[in-house]
Amino acid sequence: MSEKIAVGVLGATGMVGQRYIYLLNNHPWFEVTYVAASPRSAGKKYKDAVSSRWLIGSDIPAGVADLMVEDANNVEAALGKCKFVFSALEMDKETIKALEASYAQAGIPVVSNASANRWTEDVPMLIPEINPHHTEIIEKQKQHHGWDKGFIAVKPNCSLQSYMMPIFSLQQAGYPVKRMIVTTLQATSGAGYPGVPSFDMIDNIVPYIGGEEEKTEKEVLKILGTVKGDVIENAAGPLVAAHCNRVPVIDGHTACVSLEFDLPEDKKPSLEEIERVWTSFKGLPQGLNLPSAPIQPIIVRHEENRPQPRRDRDNDKGMAVTVGRLRSCPVFDIRFVALSHNTKRGAALGGILNAELLKAQGFFDNL
Amino acid sequence: MSEKIAVGVLGATGMVGQRYIYLLNNHPWFEVTYVAASPRSAGKKYKDAVSSRWLIGSDIPAGVADLMVEDANNVEAALGKCKFVFSALEMDKETIKALEASYAQAGIPVVSNASANRWTEDVPMLIPEINPHHTEIIEKQKQHHGWDKGFIAVKPNCSLQSYMMPIFSLQQAGYPVKRMIVTTLQATSGAGYPGVPSFDMIDNIVPYIGGEEEKTEKEVLKILGTVKGDVIENAAGPLVAAHCNRVPVIDGHTACVSLEFDLPEDKKPSLEEIERVWTSFKGLPQGLNLPSAPIQPIIVRHEENRPQPRRDRDNDKGMAVTVGRLRSCPVFDIRFVALSHNTKRGAALGGILNAELLKAQGFFDNL
Amino acid sequence: MSEKIAVGVLGATGMVGQRYIYLLNNHPWFEVTYVAASPRSAGKKYKDAVSSRWLIGSDIPAGVADLMVEDANNVEAALGKCKFVFSALEMDKETIKALEASYAQAGIPVVSNASANRWTEDVPMLIPEINPHHTEIIEKQKQHHGWDKGFIAVKPNCSLQSYMMPIFSLQQAGYPVKRMIVTTLQATSGAGYPGVPSFDMIDNIVPYIGGEEEKTEKEVLKILGTVKGDVIENAAGPLVAAHCNRVPVIDGHTACVSLEFDLPEDKKPSLEEIERVWTSFKGLPQGLNLPSAPIQPIIVRHEENRPQPRRDRDNDKGMAVTVGRLRSCPVFDIRFVALSHNTKRGAALGGILNAELLKAQGFFDNL
Amino acid sequence: MSEKIAVGVLGATGMVGQRYIYLLNNHPWFEVTYVAASPRSAGKKYKDAVSSRWLIGSDIPAGVADLMVEDANNVEAALGKCKFVFSALEMDKETIKALEASYAQAGIPVVSNASANRWTEDVPMLIPEINPHHTEIIEKQKQHHGWDKGFIAVKPNCSLQSYMMPIFSLQQAGYPVKRMIVTTLQATSGAGYPGVPSFDMIDNIVPYIGGEEEKTEKEVLKILGTVKGDVIENAAGPLVAAHCNRVPVIDGHTACVSLEFDLPEDKKPSLEEIERVWTSFKGLPQGLNLPSAPIQPIIVRHEENRPQPRRDRDNDKGMAVTVGRLRSCPVFDIRFVALSHNTKRGAALGGILNAELLKAQGFFDNL
Repeated sequence: MSEKIAVGVLGATGMVGQRYIYLLNNHPWFEVTYVAASPRSAGKKYKDAVSSRWLIGSDIPAGVADLMVEDANNVEAALGKCKFVFSALEMDKETIKALEASYAQAGIPVVSNASANRWTEDVPMLIPEINPHHTEIIEKQKQHHGWDKGFIAVKPNCSLQSYMMPIFSLQQAGYPVKRMIVTTLQATSGAGYPGVPSFDMIDNIVPYIGGEEEKTEKEVLKILGTVKGDVIENAAGPLVAAHCNRVPVIDGHTACVSLEFDLPEDKKPSLEEIERVWTSFKGLPQGLNLPSAPIQPIIVRHEENRPQPRRDRDNDKGMAVTVGRLRSCPVFDIRFVALSHNTKRGAALGGILNAELLKAQGFFDNL
Repeated sequence: MSEKIAVGVLGATGMVGQRYIYLLNNHPWFEVTYVAASPRSAGKKYKDAVSSRWLIGSDIPAGVADLMVEDANNVEAALGKCKFVFSALEMDKETIKALEASYAQAGIPVVSNASANRWTEDVPMLIPEINPHHTEIIEKQKQHHGWDKGFIAVKPNCSLQSYMMPIFSLQQAGYPVKRMIVTTLQATSGAGYPGVPSFDMIDNIVPYIGGEEEKTEKEVLKILGTVKGDVIENAAGPLVAAHCNRVPVIDGHTACVSLEFDLPEDKKPSLEEIERVWTSFKGLPQGLNLPSAPIQPIIVRHEENRPQPRRDRDNDKGMAVTVGRLRSCPVFDIRFVALSHNTKRGAALGGILNAELLKAQGFFDNL
Repeated sequence: MSEKIAVGVLGATGMVGQRYIYLLNNHPWFEVTYVAASPRSAGKKYKDAVSSRWLIGSDIPAGVADLMVEDANNVEAALGKCKFVFSALEMDKETIKALEASYAQAGIPVVSNASANRWTEDVPMLIPEINPHHTEIIEKQKQHHGWDKGFIAVKPNCSLQSYMMPIFSLQQAGYPVKRMIVTTLQATSGAGYPGVPSFDMIDNIVPYIGGEEEKTEKEVLKILGTVKGDVIENAAGPLVAAHCNRVPVIDGHTACVSLEFDLPEDKKPSLEEIERVWTSFKGLPQGLNLPSAPIQPIIVRHEENRPQPRRDRDNDKGMAVTVGRLRSCPVFDIRFVALSHNTKRGAALGGILNAELLKAQGFFDNL
Repeated sequence: MSEKIAVGVLGATGMVGQRYIYLLNNHPWFEVTYVAASPRSAGKKYKDAVSSRWLIGSDIPAGVADLMVEDANNVEAALGKCKFVFSALEMDKETIKALEASYAQAGIPVVSNASANRWTEDVPMLIPEINPHHTEIIEKQKQHHGWDKGFIAVKPNCSLQSYMMPIFSLQQAGYPVKRMIVTTLQATSGAGYPGVPSFDMIDNIVPYIGGEEEKTEKEVLKILGTVKGDVIENAAGPLVAAHCNRVPVIDGHTACVSLEFDLPEDKKPSLEEIERVWTSFKGLPQGLNLPSAPIQPIIVRHEENRPQPRRDRDNDKGMAVTVGRLRSCPVFDIRFVALSHNTKRGAALGGILNAELLKAQGFFDNL
C-alpha cells in the first residue's frame, strides 16, 4: 500500500468525482489520499459531504469515506498530501483554468476531466491509444510557465470516444478519412447530477446538448494533431458534422457514423479490410499493459442489432469501444454504429488511463 | 349520418386498425360499418375481439363496439356492407398483396397502410401534400387488371414522413436536393403491439429496425417520381443514406438530417429563405380543406432544443411536421431536426387523409 | 369576452402556473388578464419569461403570451387588473402564507394550489365533489381577519385524489371506512420542473417522496371534516398508512389500496354494491354542471390490468378518477387500484374546479 | 476442472436459462456440460441456437458456446452427460411437472426454477437461509416414487424474496408476524423475453401480473412450513395481501410492506431491535460458506430514499436483500421497503444456491 502514488481528486463530491473515488479503489498504482470540493463541503468527512447524493450502488470505499474534504480553491492544503490530482471540477471555465494552473504552479500535476484547458495550445488532450506522444508537449508547457514539476494534461469530450479509435485506426492503416456525418444518442449521465430532468427523458428525446456538437467537431482535429515546436497543431481533417441527442439511457453514448475516405475509389478499403484493421488495432496502452487499458480497444460485433448501450457499454471494464452494423453507405463510403461508456472510457476511467500513461512515461517520477 | 360513406377496416383488431377505428369516430365524411380481421377474431363482436388488447385510452367508439368482426379473407362478406376499405392488415406481404387485389377486383377500393403494394408500379404511394396527382395512375391500374370500380392506393413508410415535406417543399421552390444523410430516432409504436420488448427499451436504444433503412432510402424516389404512361417512374434523386434507431418513445419519429443541394454555391438558399419556404408551404389538402389536413403542414420552431417527440408530435391533430434546429452543416449545406407523429400522420390518419384526397378527386363517386 | 371574470395567476411561470395558463385558455367563465411571478421574471413579457421553459406541447395562448409579468410580491400591481387569483406560488411556506393573506387583505380572493394554507383552520381544503359545503367557513375567515372581499381557499395534495372520491362515496352510502393501507406510484410531474433527475428515473424507482406520506395521511381527515363554529374539525377517521413512491411516469398517480370497513361483517358491502356506489356517485359539481366537472367522477374498469396511467389519466378531461381491480382483500375487506391525473384533477384543473364552485356559490359576486 | 460436478441446464436458451449459463461460468463446484431446450433448438450449437437472442452483455461462456443443444424432452440424452440438472423450462405446468419427474426417475436430480412442482407436497421449496432443513423431505419423495438417486427441489416465486428473509428473521427472533399488506413494484425481466411490451412500460405502469399475487400470498406459508411425516405442512401464518405491479425497471423487485406482529403491545420489538435482528441475521448458507451465499443476507440502509433497484440490486452478487425506510405504521406496527434482485437471488443464482446447499448436505454424493 505504501508504495502506491498518493493522489487527490478535485471536485470529489460531484458525479465524475465520485466515479474517480469508486474506480480508484484498489487501483494497483494509485491511492486516493486527498479529496477537495467546494467550500460548502470543506471541513466535512467525505461520507458526510456526499451522504445521500452518493450516486453509485456500491458503498463509498472505506479508505476515502472518512477523509476530510478540503476546499479545492486552497491549493496549499494539497501540498504534501498527494503527488498529483485528478480534476473533476465543476465550475465556470475561467475559474477552472486558473485553478488547474495554480495546482501545476504549486508542483502538483493535474490530470483533468474538465473542458477548460482542452484548447490551451500547450496542453495535451489525450486518448492514450491514439496520441500518447502528445505528452511530449509537457516539457514545453513547463518551460512556458516556469513550472518545475507541475503540469496539466486533459482528456477530450465523451461524445467522440466511440468513433475516434475506429477513425484513427483506419487513418493509421493508410485509409485517411475525408469527412463524416455523425449522429450521437447520448446517455443522461453525461450531464452529471441532477442533470437532465426526468420530465424531458420519459417518452421523449432531446435533440440538443449545449456546446456538444462544436466540441465534437473541433476536438477531433486536436487529438489527431501534431506536436510542432511549442504547440499542438490541429490536423487538417477529417471534417465532421455532428448531431447530438440526449436519450433515456443511463450510461453509454451511441454514434451513427457515415464517412467518406480521402482516397481514390480503387484504394478504398473493403468492409473486410476495415474489420481487420479494427480488430487488430492496439495502441501504446496495450503495449505497456496499463492497468485500465482494454485488451482489445475496438470490439466488432456482427449481430444486426448491436451495439446496444445496456448490453455493450461494460465491455472490458467499460474501456473498449464496441462497433457494429458496418455496411456500405449509399451517400459516402461506409456506415457503422459505435458505442463507448461515457462515464468510464469517456470520463473517470479514461482520466485514470491518462494518468497511467503519464506514469509509465515517467512524468510522475521525482514528484 | 346516412350521407356518410360506409367504410370497412381490414386488420381492425391490430394496433393500426384500432387507430383507424378510433380516428374515424365522428369523421365528417366516413363511417365505419364493417370490420374484418383474422379468422381467430371472426364471429365475435369487435369489443370482445379486442377486449383487453384495446390499446387506446378512450373507449371503443360505440358505433363499432358491437359490430361483428368478419374474416378478412372473405371478400364476399364486405360486399354491400361498405364502399371502400382501409387496409391495416398484418400478414406476410404476398398474402396481403393478393388479398388487397381481391377486394379491388370485387369493386371495393383499398386505401392501404401495408407495405405490400408500395412497389407495385401502377399503385400510387401518396403523401397528399406532395404527390396528389399520382392518383391519375389509378385509371391505368384499373385497366391493367380489368377492375371496374376497385383500386389500390397506399401510403409510404412512417420513417420518412418527417423529412419528406421539408425536402419536397425545397425542391418545389427551386432548390433541388442532391443527397442527404438521415439518422432517425423512432418510436416503439411503429413496431405495433406487442412489438419491441421493454427489456430492449429500458436504459437502452436499439440501432436497428429490420428493413426500415431500405424502405426510407427507396420510397423517397417513388414519392417524388412522375406518372409516365402506365407506371410511376422514380425520381433520380435525392440520394439518401439512413440510420434507423429504435428509442424509448411511445409516439413520434425524430430525424436528424444533413443535406446537400444540387446547386452551385451561389444559388443555394439561405437559412432564412429555407424557413420562408417551409412556413409558407401548402399542398392540395390545404387548398381543398380536407378534414384531416393540417392548416400548416410544416411548423418551424426556434427553441434550441425542439422539436421533441412528447411536446411536438400532436401539433395540428398529429398531422403537421415540426422542424427545428435549422443550421448550416460543416460537411453538407444544412442540418435540421424533423419530427412527425408516426401513428397519426405516419399511419392511420395519414391513410384517412389519402382517402379524403381520393374522395375529393372523385374516386369514390359511383361506388 | 368582456363578461368573463378577469383572473390572475401567481407563480405563472412555474410548471403548475403554466398549466393554469394553458387550461384557462378559452375557459367559459374566466379569462387570464394578469400574471405574476418572481422578481426575476417581472417586467418581461410572459412568453419571454418562460421562453424555452414552456413545458406544454401547445403554444402559449395568444392572449397571455404578451402580458407583462408582474412581481408576485407586489400585491398593489394586481388591483384593478384581476378579480381573483390562482396561486401556484413556489416559495417557502411561510412566505406563501403571508403573501396569500396580503392578496386576501387587498380584496383579491386566492384560490390556491400551494400547501401553505392547507392546515389553516379557517381555510377550506376543497374537493368539490366531497366537501363543497366547507366553503361556508369563508365568512368566518373574513371576519377573523377583517377582510372585506378577499379570502383564501385551497386544494389538497395530489397523491390522495385517486382514492378520496372512492372512499368518500362509500362513506356517504353508509359504509364507513375504518382504516386503509395505501401504496402510491406517483408521476414525476408532481415534483415540478426540473424536479426528479432522469438519473433517478431510468431503470429505477424511488421509494420516497419528501413529506408526501404525512400529507396524504393527514389531509384525508380535514377533507372529510365538519365545519364547527369558526373552524373545520377533522374527521375521526379513516386511519391511513401511506407508502409513496416515485415512478417513471409523466402524469398520473396510481394508488394500490387495501381497506377495512368500520362495520360488522354482515353489514359490509359486496363488491357489486361497491361498484354500484362508485358508478352512481355524483357530487355538487355534477349537479351544478360546472365547466370542469367530469360527467361521471368515478369510472370503474373491468379489465384485469387497468387502470394504467397512460391509458386512463385523461378520462373526462383528466378530471375523472379511474378505479379497477376491485377484489376482496385477504387481510382487510377489499382491495383496488385507483388512478387520477395529478396535474389536471390533482393540480391546475382541480384548482379551476374549486374556482368554478366558488363562483357558482356566489363568492365572486360583487368583487 | 475435472473434479467439478457436471451439470445440465434445461430450457437453456430462454432468459432464465441463459442466466444459469452465465452465472455458472467459473463456478467452483459446478460445470455446465449439457444444455437442452425445445426441439426447435435441438441439434444446433448453443451459440447458434441463441444467436441474437443472447440477452446478456458479456459473451456466451466459451465452454458452453459450442455445446450441442439437446431436446429437453429426451431424458435419455442427458444420461452420462451430467449429474444433475437445473430446470429453467418454459412450457405449460403439466408438461414441466411430468418432464421433471422423468429426469428424477432417470436418476438425475432436478433443481428447478419452474413453478410446476412448488405445490407438490413432498417437494421442498427452498430459500436456504430460511428452510434448509426442508430438504429432509427428499428421502420421502424418493420413497414415494421409487426413485433411486433422482429427486426434485424447487425455489419459490421471485416476488417474495425481498421480504421473506426480513419476515423470517423476525419470527425466528421471537417476533411472529400476524399479517401484512405488501405492494410490489416488479422489474420487467421477471416476465422473461420478449415479456412485457415496451408499449406498456414507457410512461406507464401496469398494476397487474397474472397469478403473482396468489403465488406470493400462498408460497409464504409453505416456505415457513414444517416437515411432518411425508409432507411439508403449511405454516398457519402470516396472512398476506399482495398488490403486484409491473414497473419500467430492468432488474430488481421492490416491496412496500406494512405488517402487524402477533404479540401483545408491550412485547412488540422496537425499530432498533428489528434492525438488530436484520443486520445480525445469518442462515445455514453463511455458516457453510456456500459460494453463492451473501455474507450478510439482509442489508439495512438508512438513507431516506433507499433501497432503489438500480443502486441496490447488485449488493453482494445480487444475493443480499436490501431493506430501508424502516418506520412505524399508523395502521399496523411497522413499515419498510425491501428490494431483491429478481433474476439473481430471485431466479438463477437462487437456484444455484439451492444446488450448493444440496451438495453440502450430501444430496449429490454417489450420483
